Amino acid sequence: MTATAFESWMHEVQQEVERALDANLPQATALPHKLHEAMRYTALGGGKRVRPLLAYAAGDLFGGNASVLARVASAVEMIHVYSLVHDDMPCMDDDDLRRGKPTVHVAYDEATALLVGDALQAQAFQVLADIDTLPPARQVLMLRLLAEAAGSSGMCGGQAIDLDSVGLSLTREELERMHQLKTGAMLRVSVILGALAGRDLSATEMEALGAYSKAIGLAFQVVDDVLDATADSATLGKTAGKDAADNKPTYVSILGLEPSKELAEQLRREAHEALAPFGEQALRLRDLADLIVQRKA
Amino acid sequence: MTATAFESWMHEVQQEVERALDANLPQATALPHKLHEAMRYTALGGGKRVRPLLAYAAGDLFGGNASVLARVASAVEMIHVYSLVHDDMPCMDDDDLRRGKPTVHVAYDEATALLVGDALQAQAFQVLADIDTLPPARQVLMLRLLAEAAGSSGMCGGQAIDLDSVGLSLTREELERMHQLKTGAMLRVSVILGALAGRDLSATEMEALGAYSKAIGLAFQVVDDVLDATADSATLGKTAGKDAADNKPTYVSILGLEPSKELAEQLRREAHEALAPFGEQALRLRDLADLIVQRKA
Repeated sequence: MTATAFESWMHEVQQEVERALDANLPQATALPHKLHEAMRYTALGGGKRVRPLLAYAAGDLFGGNASVLARVASAVEMIHVYSLVHDDMPCMDDDDLRRGKPTVHVAYDEATALLVGDALQAQAFQVLADIDTLPPARQVLMLRLLAEAAGSSGMCGGQAIDLDSVGLSLTREELERMHQLKTGAMLRVSVILGALAGRDLSATEMEALGAYSKAIGLAFQVVDDVLDATADSATLGKTAGKDAADNKPTYVSILGLEPSKELAEQLRREAHEALAPFGEQALRLRDLADLIVQRKA
Repeated sequence: MTATAFESWMHEVQQEVERALDANLPQATALPHKLHEAMRYTALGGGKRVRPLLAYAAGDLFGGNASVLARVASAVEMIHVYSLVHDDMPCMDDDDLRRGKPTVHVAYDEATALLVGDALQAQAFQVLADIDTLPPARQVLMLRLLAEAAGSSGMCGGQAIDLDSVGLSLTREELERMHQLKTGAMLRVSVILGALAGRDLSATEMEALGAYSKAIGLAFQVVDDVLDATADSATLGKTAGKDAADNKPTYVSILGLEPSKELAEQLRREAHEALAPFGEQALRLRDLADLIVQRKA
């Protein structure tokens, strides 16, 4: 029963996010056409929308209204999508397939992929800054947190460490630090911004949401590594087995397959524990922790 | 006499901007070292700092305080620098020399150049969002204007049009529209944010500053084209004659050299006229219009 209610909630949010992205991306009829078309090509019609789902789940818990959540979800997803576009470029991971379709530099060209990513990042900040119903002081805080999560002490920093780690044997602690920046920072800010869409947060609430985010962030990466080692490209919608082929350190290469699966399960429990102070109300955040660990793609 | 006072004001602002960038960029000792080192390599120690100078000049006129102006100037310069780093990459202009030193993808590698640009853009928003002495509603407006100027209906949009114009013969109107986005949007927002560092602006004031910015934005580009056609690489600190070699439409290719010089002079007068409502106080903005037209590099 809960599973079914969760699935229909998730489906509803994913449709809402699609509508919100459509509304918050520049129209393809606006100049420059090709850039806008390419931004829409990569941002619309695909992806699990994990970050938007986290924002909506936290928004539910803290009473965020629908139109603010739609913008918050669009903003975090745009940052995520831009990072994928740049990450797929030949000078980075050189990947041809993403979310089951050709990557931007393949469907268009490299220069367009570069600009699409750059413009999506700016668009994310614009979508968040354009909200006109939030208390401005809280909105400035949200913009600051998004910038921090996206930048060199967050996502970009994690990618830089990732890049420099190819061929190195990282310790588990080093691997964890990299992923806390590369993926964890944006997952965490998705939760926090979703909550802030509703109201100001106490230090205790911020800490509990932070602990939840840390656990699901790591779980997300552990499961990614497990899937990369065990699933096939068609299921993943991207090239499987890339990490081993690229000689990248992963949880599977450091801990082994079974211990990695056990770690994911342990992190799922930690995520649930972090939500204890919020009681029954944190239903969707708990469901998402389960989803992140149990997903097959 | 005025020239000398202006020159020492300019020198003082440039030193202040260098200090501000140094303070507002992540330290190279913070992880990830290479990324932070490369961000500092490209952002520090070079450049005419035209956008920061415009922000300070407008800030002077509207009473902006020094610490807010330092952050506004850092933010607009970081956006500018990130655009240069990405623009110089092999998939764009493929340039080896910038501000008299090797470009980031030459001094480091392409992947680092990509991440340096991405991280500098996020850092720009963070530096602006981190100001804690502005009325939050005005600060949200400033963040919104910066995002708009940097994104697909501003700088990135202009670069996309530029990219698609190689080998085409643009009309003067099309060329003007491209430059209004590519360079004009960031010059304009530098002026507006500098003014907003001081106080809220009336619609009339916003319009006058917009007219000034439009004139100097176009003048800036016309002069760029003239210099690209007439100066040498050592003077420019970047490869001269690139536009013709790349078959890019320029004012010189459309209007010819002498009419381009006359146009620049006419735009300088228009910039002065736009400042008339502000009287003597707009001294530094007038000086900068003169500088933009009369510069040799």
